[in-house]
Amino acid sequence: MSDEQFEKLRQELRRGILVLAVLGSLRQPHYGYSLRKQLQDAGLDIDEGTLYPLVRRLADQGLLTSEWQQGEGRERRYYQLSPEGSSLLESLGNEWRALNQHVGKILEVNDGTH
Amino acid sequence: MSDEQFEKLRQELRRGILVLAVLGSLRQPHYGYSLRKQLQDAGLDIDEGTLYPLVRRLADQGLLTSEWQQGEGRERRYYQLSPEGSSLLESLGNEWRALNQHVGKILEVNDGTH
Repeated sequence: MSDEQFEKLRQELRRGILVLAVLGSLRQPHYGYSLRKQLQDAGLDIDEGTLYPLVRRLADQGLLTSEWQQGEGRERRYYQLSPEGSSLLESLGNEWRALNQHVGKILEVNDGTH
Repeated sequence: MSDEQFEKLRQELRRGILVLAVLGSLRQPHYGYSLRKQLQDAGLDIDEGTLYPLVRRLADQGLLTSEWQQGEGRERRYYQLSPEGSSLLESLGNEWRALNQHVGKILEVNDGTH
């Protein structure tokens, strides 16, 4: 398997839970950079070219509300979960927890290192 | 957000970790149906049209070895992790555990229900 193939699988693994991480972060209002910083602080380094289009897509789908606010001396567009976004976060979060439990079970069975 | 959009996000979340679940299961030899059954028993219900092509793809990439064996009265093709597959399982598994930790951190912060 080439590095490229491994990288593709790694990206596939990340992509699905990225939405979850962004929705989870946006229970609090953030503008682009502060969102990116919060995700980074939690260990998720997502480049701007991936994160910002994703945020705009979620806003277009009605999952986020946004408004211009004064922050640190300049106007910035702040995003936050809409009620619909909160409801999606809850559903996806439950799905994610269930998946983790299932996969965790599979990875532990017959694994000599555990 | 439509049901269709939610279903798409749900599928995206599943897709990435499906490879991980399949690799984890194939530390032991399985033929198609027994693999599907094992995943199902762990809570992951994956339809044949998704699972079997994925297994063939992983085999084509050299991540699985396969051989015909007698099982329950008929010849079946059994699949099992190759050394390269084991190594991928370890890398992806580490990635998955790290991602879970990061996302878990994000989801718990400021969450009134925890």
